[in-house]
Amino acid sequence: MKIYDYPAFPNPARVRIALHEKGVFDQIEFVTIDVPAGEHKSARFAARNPSTAVPVLELECGTFISECTAITEYIDNAFDGPRLTGTTAKEKATIHMMQRRSEQMVMDAVGSYFHHATSGLGPDIESYQNAEWGRHQQNIAKKGFEYFNEVLKDRRYVATGDFSMADITLYCGLGFADFVKVDVPASLEHLHQWRSQVAERESVKAAAAG
Amino acid sequence: MKIYDYPAFPNPARVRIALHEKGVFDQIEFVTIDVPAGEHKSARFAARNPSTAVPVLELECGTFISECTAITEYIDNAFDGPRLTGTTAKEKATIHMMQRRSEQMVMDAVGSYFHHATSGLGPDIESYQNAEWGRHQQNIAKKGFEYFNEVLKDRRYVATGDFSMADITLYCGLGFADFVKVDVPASLEHLHQWRSQVAERESVKAAAAG
Repeated sequence: MKIYDYPAFPNPARVRIALHEKGVFDQIEFVTIDVPAGEHKSARFAARNPSTAVPVLELECGTFISECTAITEYIDNAFDGPRLTGTTAKEKATIHMMQRRSEQMVMDAVGSYFHHATSGLGPDIESYQNAEWGRHQQNIAKKGFEYFNEVLKDRRYVATGDFSMADITLYCGLGFADFVKVDVPASLEHLHQWRSQVAERESVKAAAAG
Repeated sequence: MKIYDYPAFPNPARVRIALHEKGVFDQIEFVTIDVPAGEHKSARFAARNPSTAVPVLELECGTFISECTAITEYIDNAFDGPRLTGTTAKEKATIHMMQRRSEQMVMDAVGSYFHHATSGLGPDIESYQNAEWGRHQQNIAKKGFEYFNEVLKDRRYVATGDFSMADITLYCGLGFADFVKVDVPASLEHLHQWRSQVAERESVKAAAAG
């Protein structure tokens, strides 16, 4: 199996952490797509993923899977190891709900701020920008931080009693927020405490080490 | 189990079709949330779903599940009947990928057009509008129609060989597009042919009948 990505970026990090959690990182061949140079917008890459985003997983049969939730579903169901997408109907539903909230309220909101209200990946790549939309999404992210702080007040993890893909998404979303300087207020202590805990996981340290 | 929704709207329709596919529609108690009057924005409803959107599923244990993908995961895994979210790792991944594309490229793009570039649900409910963003999303939807027409050129269903939640999402997204008058060009014959086929399913007819 191959993964096309750009190592330091937030969505690639999500899948790399998932692979380390499952203990199968070494079974993957990584192919770097030069995102800062716009390689993900090329016709060749668009044929693999019409959304022109990394990461993309290529299965042995030649099928391309994109979108982090879909890639994580593949990894979680194809390999043994700790479950990242739940086992029971209620767990699966709760994890998918919190995955979507981690995306909409943090990861994608921060991404929209970056691509629309800052210079993003530069004028050659950011062919459409709507600064007002980007600033609105920055506010969504700030409310998202408050929401997750409340969630984590009496819970160890974002979705269920176990670490899941929703934790990975929120963690990488906060890393993206740091990068684009959308501060998480120090007063959100439950969120910070959870983040420190997640940062100590072997999978997260291994993914950060590259 | 209860579902809080507003029957004629596109996201509620997704879950209702899924329930009919699984043959469990009659096991659900439906509670109408008066979305045109803004009931979904009330503090009481926000406690059930911080995204303030319908539908929301309430389990017997009192847990609230929101987001259509999450609700469909619950329904599909809790009940027998045809699989809507796949069985193998590859099927699950492919269905989640196409689900996300059906949302981003059609359902949510049409929704953003509706809420931002038209009067939407009216000035009392649409507290933030960005018309330029809405028009941009209308263009995303139009490209989405073309993308899915290509996908359906040599495939019976959107994701795998079987009808899945990704078909439901695209179908309801096209219904939303009709409602807001974002036309699907007649030239997209594969998309229209697939749509006619889906419209003939018992589940879709039953959901439309209310």
